[in-house]
Amino acid sequence: MTPIQKFEKPLGMRDSFPLINEKKEKVREIGRTFFRSRGFDFIKTPTVEYYETIGKASAITDSSLFKLVDRQGETLVLRPDMTTPIVRVATSKLLKEQIPLRLAYFANVFRAQENEGGRPAEFEQMGVELIGDASVYADAEMIITASEFVEALGIDDYQLTVGHAGLLQSILMELTNSNGQVKELRQFLLEKNLVGFEEVIRTYELPNEVEAHLIEFINQASNLHSTEQLSSFIDEKNESQVQMFSYLKKLSILLENAGLSNLVAYDLTLTSEMSYYTGMLFEVFANGSGFALGNGGRYDGLLEEFNSTVGATGFGLRVDRLLEVIKPFTQRESHTLIYFDDVHYVEAVEAAKELRKQGIRTTIQLISSVEDQPSFQTNFSNVEWLIEGVGNNE
Amino acid sequence: MTPIQKFEKPLGMRDSFPLINEKKEKVREIGRTFFRSRGFDFIKTPTVEYYETIGKASAITDSSLFKLVDRQGETLVLRPDMTTPIVRVATSKLLKEQIPLRLAYFANVFRAQENEGGRPAEFEQMGVELIGDASVYADAEMIITASEFVEALGIDDYQLTVGHAGLLQSILMELTNSNGQVKELRQFLLEKNLVGFEEVIRTYELPNEVEAHLIEFINQASNLHSTEQLSSFIDEKNESQVQMFSYLKKLSILLENAGLSNLVAYDLTLTSEMSYYTGMLFEVFANGSGFALGNGGRYDGLLEEFNSTVGATGFGLRVDRLLEVIKPFTQRESHTLIYFDDVHYVEAVEAAKELRKQGIRTTIQLISSVEDQPSFQTNFSNVEWLIEGVGNNE
Repeated sequence: MTPIQKFEKPLGMRDSFPLINEKKEKVREIGRTFFRSRGFDFIKTPTVEYYETIGKASAITDSSLFKLVDRQGETLVLRPDMTTPIVRVATSKLLKEQIPLRLAYFANVFRAQENEGGRPAEFEQMGVELIGDASVYADAEMIITASEFVEALGIDDYQLTVGHAGLLQSILMELTNSNGQVKELRQFLLEKNLVGFEEVIRTYELPNEVEAHLIEFINQASNLHSTEQLSSFIDEKNESQVQMFSYLKKLSILLENAGLSNLVAYDLTLTSEMSYYTGMLFEVFANGSGFALGNGGRYDGLLEEFNSTVGATGFGLRVDRLLEVIKPFTQRESHTLIYFDDVHYVEAVEAAKELRKQGIRTTIQLISSVEDQPSFQTNFSNVEWLIEGVGNNE
Repeated sequence: MTPIQKFEKPLGMRDSFPLINEKKEKVREIGRTFFRSRGFDFIKTPTVEYYETIGKASAITDSSLFKLVDRQGETLVLRPDMTTPIVRVATSKLLKEQIPLRLAYFANVFRAQENEGGRPAEFEQMGVELIGDASVYADAEMIITASEFVEALGIDDYQLTVGHAGLLQSILMELTNSNGQVKELRQFLLEKNLVGFEEVIRTYELPNEVEAHLIEFINQASNLHSTEQLSSFIDEKNESQVQMFSYLKKLSILLENAGLSNLVAYDLTLTSEMSYYTGMLFEVFANGSGFALGNGGRYDGLLEEFNSTVGATGFGLRVDRLLEVIKPFTQRESHTLIYFDDVHYVEAVEAAKELRKQGIRTTIQLISSVEDQPSFQTNFSNVEWLIEGVGNNE
């Protein structure tokens, strides 16, 4: 192993330099105002949680967790997602009387990387959770809020894909009758690997018509503009399937009412690496971006792990991916630099005070401490000189 | 060991609930505007760094570090302070041409706790670093900026204590002539344990007049309103001491020019657990609070560890301690709750849209999902009902 150099950072860890950080801050600012205006309250949870509680419940594979041992000998993790810690908070004594709870967060989450493939090991998520409301209105509120937020960021070329984790599970279970096969098929769907999906079902030795039905399902149950087009995949004799499908139809009416028809596509093959989703789930895609900007869904199952029977739904967006598709917010701001020398210090302080009062960003700098003036000045829109024997402007 | 309960958090880890989080956000917002207006650019660095680089350079004792091992077998740490990562960034190729650099941050830092004594293991710091300016004006800028920022937060009853790490080191070294004794004495000064200081010097078997001089020093070299009062402790024959003292006097003139005379006390016994401070150092105290709100100083030595010879100075403040002394910012904001039932969903959505347009924070909620209406409503200033058979107001 080569020795670590002073300037190196761990695998997948990044610095945010001023320009990118300002852009992120602008996204956070829009998010704060937007989510608060809709009744969500921001909370923060610790970066470090117990492996036994949050680590195991988070539905992130063990090998992606950053683990550490504390001085008491307990295993800790850097939080791999925010939904699980928020459920911990929401089911605690302090808040559970006020459900339904609308909570929001900006937070870094952590996923260990095996090699430097450009994927970040720490990234910022923003999102909301609506805990304690099992109604279809709560799910509609999540999708509508995600849509309106993406628009508030100035992203207008985007799409929402809506599916149903419970319905997918039920359909695959009915056709394969094997938990192991369902899990395997969901993994292919997660990777959008339809070739792999078709190949693997051939190895299952299913009845011919079932195999044909499965292939028809993955080819035709996605990218649909109406839930009606999904009805042929529903088993009318399976009451739970019928119920879930009726829920999805009701959701689609609420989304239509909200004017989202043109933005929503239904996809029963949609699945998530988060195994805690039990009901509707959705993804937000910006056209032209290969990755989802974010995703969400109903996760009543996770609440049960915290001994709560109230339902919950929510979504999260990745700030790094939002930044890729957001248009530049503003032009370069004005920033004045005042150079001073030993005799003009007080004048420089006074001039800066005056400019700052006028709302102009102002830096004062002893000129003899600047080694490379042209490089130093690149970040300023205006330079003034309070220097013995030099005019006031360049 | 008792099994960990679902709701438990690791030792010293805290949740920030909405009310406290809003107050913190307000502090961040004031900080962002304030520091940017003075020419500082915000950056972010990873939560996780290499132990070999940041961990060792950070001057935090090893037992307070959260350590973990990554999948490549390297030892990592949760950053214990922000100054060291910022020096790593500032001395990297990308930024070093633009020095002097003015960088700012809000960031959580981590210190492992041995027992639950109420001390947080993760806390938020905000601060600035001015890297690449070795002049006394840079040090003055730090103290003045800290002072003006504390005032921008509405804290007016505070004090600044200014010392000099190099001068203290030189005076103690001259009197004891032992590195080990100097280290021991600095530890007593750090704990403000003057009794312990006096007791331990008696064990050093120093000449009587030296012992007397040391006791006089710790009793009289603090809480002084003029640097002149310190001159009796300076050895006129020690050129480096004379030089550092002259630097301190120049700094005091700049602070006086800035109108800070009444707020500044000089204290040559001031020291820091951060061993990288080499020049002036200072602390900000709110009257009535036992802890420093923050501290700062010149740390040219740390730059040397990153193979840089440019000087650097900065300060950081603890957000949790600022919150303790800040007056409440505003009264409770208005927040409207609209209850709806199945038939009034669309009306509720429209009404909310209208109110939000007017800038009124608005939540819509299906009434049948609310179990405990009085508890749920406590957070709202206004409740409206779009319910079959119920008037529009309570």
